[in-house]
Amino acid sequence: MFGTVAAFERALAELPPPDAKARKAAMARQAELTKPPGSLGRLEEIAIFFAGWQGVERPRVQRGRALVFAGNHGVVARGVSAFPADVTAQMVANFAAGGAAINALTTAAGLDLAVIPLNLERPTADFTLSPAMTEAECLAAINAGAAAIGDADLLVLGEMGIGNSTAAAAIAAASFGGTGADWVGPGTGMDAAGIARKAEVVDAALAHHAGQFGSAFDILRRVGGREIAAIAGALVAARKARVPVLLDGFICTSAIAPLARYAPAIAEHCLAGHCSAEPGHRRLLDRLGLAPLLSLDMRLGEGSGAAVAAQIVRSALAMHENMATFAEAGIAAG
Amino acid sequence: MFGTVAAFERALAELPPPDAKARKAAMARQAELTKPPGSLGRLEEIAIFFAGWQGVERPRVQRGRALVFAGNHGVVARGVSAFPADVTAQMVANFAAGGAAINALTTAAGLDLAVIPLNLERPTADFTLSPAMTEAECLAAINAGAAAIGDADLLVLGEMGIGNSTAAAAIAAASFGGTGADWVGPGTGMDAAGIARKAEVVDAALAHHAGQFGSAFDILRRVGGREIAAIAGALVAARKARVPVLLDGFICTSAIAPLARYAPAIAEHCLAGHCSAEPGHRRLLDRLGLAPLLSLDMRLGEGSGAAVAAQIVRSALAMHENMATFAEAGIAAG
Repeated sequence: MFGTVAAFERALAELPPPDAKARKAAMARQAELTKPPGSLGRLEEIAIFFAGWQGVERPRVQRGRALVFAGNHGVVARGVSAFPADVTAQMVANFAAGGAAINALTTAAGLDLAVIPLNLERPTADFTLSPAMTEAECLAAINAGAAAIGDADLLVLGEMGIGNSTAAAAIAAASFGGTGADWVGPGTGMDAAGIARKAEVVDAALAHHAGQFGSAFDILRRVGGREIAAIAGALVAARKARVPVLLDGFICTSAIAPLARYAPAIAEHCLAGHCSAEPGHRRLLDRLGLAPLLSLDMRLGEGSGAAVAAQIVRSALAMHENMATFAEAGIAAG
Repeated sequence: MFGTVAAFERALAELPPPDAKARKAAMARQAELTKPPGSLGRLEEIAIFFAGWQGVERPRVQRGRALVFAGNHGVVARGVSAFPADVTAQMVANFAAGGAAINALTTAAGLDLAVIPLNLERPTADFTLSPAMTEAECLAAINAGAAAIGDADLLVLGEMGIGNSTAAAAIAAASFGGTGADWVGPGTGMDAAGIARKAEVVDAALAHHAGQFGSAFDILRRVGGREIAAIAGALVAARKARVPVLLDGFICTSAIAPLARYAPAIAEHCLAGHCSAEPGHRRLLDRLGLAPLLSLDMRLGEGSGAAVAAQIVRSALAMHENMATFAEAGIAAG
């Protein structure tokens, strides 16, 4: 999809807007449906949002797809995770066997699920000592993400990668400022000492790469991970194709931070599926101007929160498509 | 279902608890599924909640049913609604024709929908001047609600009734204290003057019935409405049958307030589907100790918010039922 780093950065500089005419038509339809104006709140906003990105008055999700990217991280050598790195591959096997949360949740929401493991046998480098990836490695990961969107009409983006909440915190800090302590959290279940260790690791990374975060690509490459770069690639490719995206939790959302630093409009085709219990997520969403659809104290990743939020999207689009207008129902509007 | 008022009050005094053994089995299962403990937050709580009320380790929703009760209100003569009273019957016709929000949302959530109009041609009395209903009328409405639960394994409760947000505010004040201004709001779209008028009407009702709110039944009868009493009847009947309930917005939730005043455990088989944009709803939920699943700025009623929340329940139960355990997946638990 992106032949060079420059092509990726150029795509980021040329983000298409939603279809204004389709948005307007959907807004007009909402005003005519048999309910007090605005009384369905965010369901109405979701219907109008999808109309704009799909370019039709009555949008539908017929090819909803969840993408779960998996990667391994050299930084786990610093003791930043409660689980050993082997668990990444074991969970990918669990996804393939249908036994993980994301399997159950995508089935419940009527979404296809594609799991994309990215060189699990070759973790990224420890980013406290060097860039996590070479330029070629990072571009390959971005393109793996871009290629995976296929012909989806809704994308749910998720990830799996032992150690990646530390990479996400480093990306957030590199994109929006702050120290490690501002962005780290318990992840899959670290105690206070573990959280302090994560903060130190992020601070060490910020010091090592100081002055070298000159582009979205640089941030992804230096302190990211393959699965995070793949999410960034899928996000930009989806935008080029005007495909709406449901973001998952802290790690998934961290992938948009470097893009938003250099191209603030990148979040416009995204809905925040939920607000995770991981403390940095709320802060990231605030910085991105995204209001989460759900807040259910989830903190698993895998795309799980976004997959649940896809159910809300289905409700919104069913309402928009199937309700009668006041004229059709023979009711005097209020 | 309830032959006498005393039988209804007695049912309220003899509320069964959830099945402790099934809850414990569900909790044990949650601890073994392939995810960090607690990482699915409220989805885990929902699965355990359903296990307790359905009395099985792996609960299912196979006969989910939404009940929408409709009633008319004498108090509309006081100018408390933006819509004329005729709209209640027109919306019931819209429900029957399949054109309302609740039709689209229950279909999307895989729920049956039953609409139960309650003597629409005979509004309740203006409760600023006399009790809204006679004892016989109120008991009949309660029993209409109790009879409607059928063999459902999940109930979504909703309502339609022009003027009923004023009745709901009066019930909330009679149950939990405060004045009209503490509990009224815009409802379907009243302006500031209309909201002030609603507050005055509630205050007039509180003054008229002062000292006569001696039981849950008295509150429902004096300042309620048929659809609100029916919801109360369905709630108590569901509890007797240990059927979990999803509450909708302010008006639906007001039906539980008089019950909770005299039997605080009544809320235990209920989940708050959402928090409505109607300001009194948050206050009611706080008083009842209920944390809403959704907060989507909805304020339509009809059971619409609870129907959307049923999708969250489906996600939770699918996760609980279909995920692999660490042992099944061959993964070392963290």
